[in-house]
Amino acid sequence: MLNVLTPEEVYRVIENSFDVAAKEEAVALSEVCDRILTSPVTAGGDEPPFNRSTVDGYAVKASDTFGASESLPAILELAGEIRMGELSSSSLPPDSCIRIPTGGSVPEGADCVVMQEYTEDYEDGTIGVTKPAAPGENMVFKGDDVRKGDVVLPAGRLISPKDVGTLASLGVTQVLVRKPIRAGIFSTGDELVPEYETPGPGQIRDINSRMLAAVCGERGCEVTTYGIIPDDLDLLKSALQKALAECDIIIISGGSSVGEKDNSVKAISSFGEILFHGIAMKPGKPTLLGKVLGKPVFGLPGHPQAAFFTAKLYVCAAIDRLLGQTRRDVRVPAAIAHAVSANDGRALFMPVTLKQEGKSLTALPLHSKSGLVSGLARADGFISIPRNCEGIRAGETVMVTLF
Amino acid sequence: MLNVLTPEEVYRVIENSFDVAAKEEAVALSEVCDRILTSPVTAGGDEPPFNRSTVDGYAVKASDTFGASESLPAILELAGEIRMGELSSSSLPPDSCIRIPTGGSVPEGADCVVMQEYTEDYEDGTIGVTKPAAPGENMVFKGDDVRKGDVVLPAGRLISPKDVGTLASLGVTQVLVRKPIRAGIFSTGDELVPEYETPGPGQIRDINSRMLAAVCGERGCEVTTYGIIPDDLDLLKSALQKALAECDIIIISGGSSVGEKDNSVKAISSFGEILFHGIAMKPGKPTLLGKVLGKPVFGLPGHPQAAFFTAKLYVCAAIDRLLGQTRRDVRVPAAIAHAVSANDGRALFMPVTLKQEGKSLTALPLHSKSGLVSGLARADGFISIPRNCEGIRAGETVMVTLF
Repeated sequence: MLNVLTPEEVYRVIENSFDVAAKEEAVALSEVCDRILTSPVTAGGDEPPFNRSTVDGYAVKASDTFGASESLPAILELAGEIRMGELSSSSLPPDSCIRIPTGGSVPEGADCVVMQEYTEDYEDGTIGVTKPAAPGENMVFKGDDVRKGDVVLPAGRLISPKDVGTLASLGVTQVLVRKPIRAGIFSTGDELVPEYETPGPGQIRDINSRMLAAVCGERGCEVTTYGIIPDDLDLLKSALQKALAECDIIIISGGSSVGEKDNSVKAISSFGEILFHGIAMKPGKPTLLGKVLGKPVFGLPGHPQAAFFTAKLYVCAAIDRLLGQTRRDVRVPAAIAHAVSANDGRALFMPVTLKQEGKSLTALPLHSKSGLVSGLARADGFISIPRNCEGIRAGETVMVTLF
Repeated sequence: MLNVLTPEEVYRVIENSFDVAAKEEAVALSEVCDRILTSPVTAGGDEPPFNRSTVDGYAVKASDTFGASESLPAILELAGEIRMGELSSSSLPPDSCIRIPTGGSVPEGADCVVMQEYTEDYEDGTIGVTKPAAPGENMVFKGDDVRKGDVVLPAGRLISPKDVGTLASLGVTQVLVRKPIRAGIFSTGDELVPEYETPGPGQIRDINSRMLAAVCGERGCEVTTYGIIPDDLDLLKSALQKALAECDIIIISGGSSVGEKDNSVKAISSFGEILFHGIAMKPGKPTLLGKVLGKPVFGLPGHPQAAFFTAKLYVCAAIDRLLGQTRRDVRVPAAIAHAVSANDGRALFMPVTLKQEGKSLTALPLHSKSGLVSGLARADGFISIPRNCEGIRAGETVMVTLF
């Protein structure tokens, strides 16, 4: 009997059955993009490290300027000047001001900065302020951006170009990241020929090997493809054994016939355990996951669209788990273009094309009738309809997971 | 006088001033992910290549089954059997049926397939059909998926993992793609020290070199960083000359002081022309673009957030242009968490954090007060408010461009 799980249960099984497998390595800032942080990056100090002026002007005590106007300026003693890159040592005396540049350190006793434009230099050692200032005006406070010890980038983060900027701004020049994990991929089936051959009668091209290699490569794996394995249990077992010795995760696709399915189950069972066999979803029902030597071994459906879906959903989740990665796929709200019925007790996953008009996104469902080639080429993402839902009305808002 | 353009005008200038610069190369299917198609990929034949059955059953003429029921089946002669991978040569005689497997070629004269479940084999050369079938039922027609010559993937397409599947399904094993373009990056400013040094008084770390290298690398460039150039026109000119000899696009950042800005303008003008100087946006106003030897030379603001924005918006657009790429950034609708005022005559660009709750996305604006480090680290994307708009009310729908 198939042990059929819901998609949510599958995610829990993946989360609970496997540990982070990727080792860590130190990588220079110039090479960290698209890598995954092993530990959080924290701020080594307060930023800004002192109360900082955001304008050229005069540091003052706000209350000394209350009531000031063009006709009746507040007259303040010029008590000195802060230079750029100089920490203010003296504090501001009463009824005084100190000249300060943009980025300068606001002296003790001052609680705001008056812009140059609203002052007049009488050149007799006094400055006229022609507009009242509020406390905090034109300055940022020590630690306003980040405080020493704050987690700036969490562990498990996929590093983006802007994160490179964040790391540089913190003076971080080397980062501990996960080494790529190794994925092994093979297709099974007597009817398959490599994609570079023209299929004869009763044969079809092996689409999945290349496609799944691309999915795993994009998600941070070093990929080995082991080619096409015929429907022969011994050949499958020896291919699996070789892949287990060389890889951290293995993806077998194919097995649409009963005999092939049995072979995958038997081969995995002979080395380890089957965690589940069957997911309550469409397409993708015959998906299975085993655990051998602590490593995930997937059996995906042979149909390329089903293989693509299940790889994006579950293989990627397992890769994330092995990499200790917290990335979640981007989901965006869109209005469904027409009704979709879905009351067969399985979660329905359906590829959609997204259309943007002004501020509204429309998701156009691609029914399976649209065929393999155009279905894959035109899909921008997919929607899922839970198994206890009878369908979606035209115009209803759906969440689209982007490819 | 600055020649200040609107963001829309900047895109037009980029589109009209530069040509595709990237050469093409032939790449194997295993290496095409994230590369850009030089020419459209078309279908070499109809797919499916024949009318195909989607079930195991019997090919029939639908009208022969009309009125059939369990109690009164339609009795049809069994006129033969189609084997998998075999093109049906003979056509269906009247009042007959032909046995057909899933994927089999539906014979001439048949217009639908009856599922095995709804038939009975009397084993006397006749078959009983117990349920009426509609024309077209359980089959897909020749060319339903794609027709010979159809454009399946357009020129300029960035190839994704699913596109690899599409290419494999078409039997395409080698693809003409754009070679990467070469980007040269340097920062200018006497106050800058490399990110691996601790800034002294009045000094700041060069954040932009690494960050802009990551932005350009992610967008498909081979990047050379030329380091920090002091505020000296001759040094800047010779650095620019060297970069022009080695790169297809050059990005200079820095120049917050008037003197530095002048140097960038002078250096670019001495070799070519300035296309514009200044964009009506905030941040990013002092952005400039020149054209030297047909190559774009950008001068970006020194402030890292402003440099990041302008690079994501305009440098990436220029890279796309040089690569002949049609990619557009993903924009998603979200409700703004609180009001944003913006009535200063410039387009306002503001980073936001996205929060998803159920089917609603909320965009939380990150005001510049939030500072450089946390502002970059927490931003998931940005919104833009047109220059003739007075602001956005809380809860209003905004389009978020994802980073």
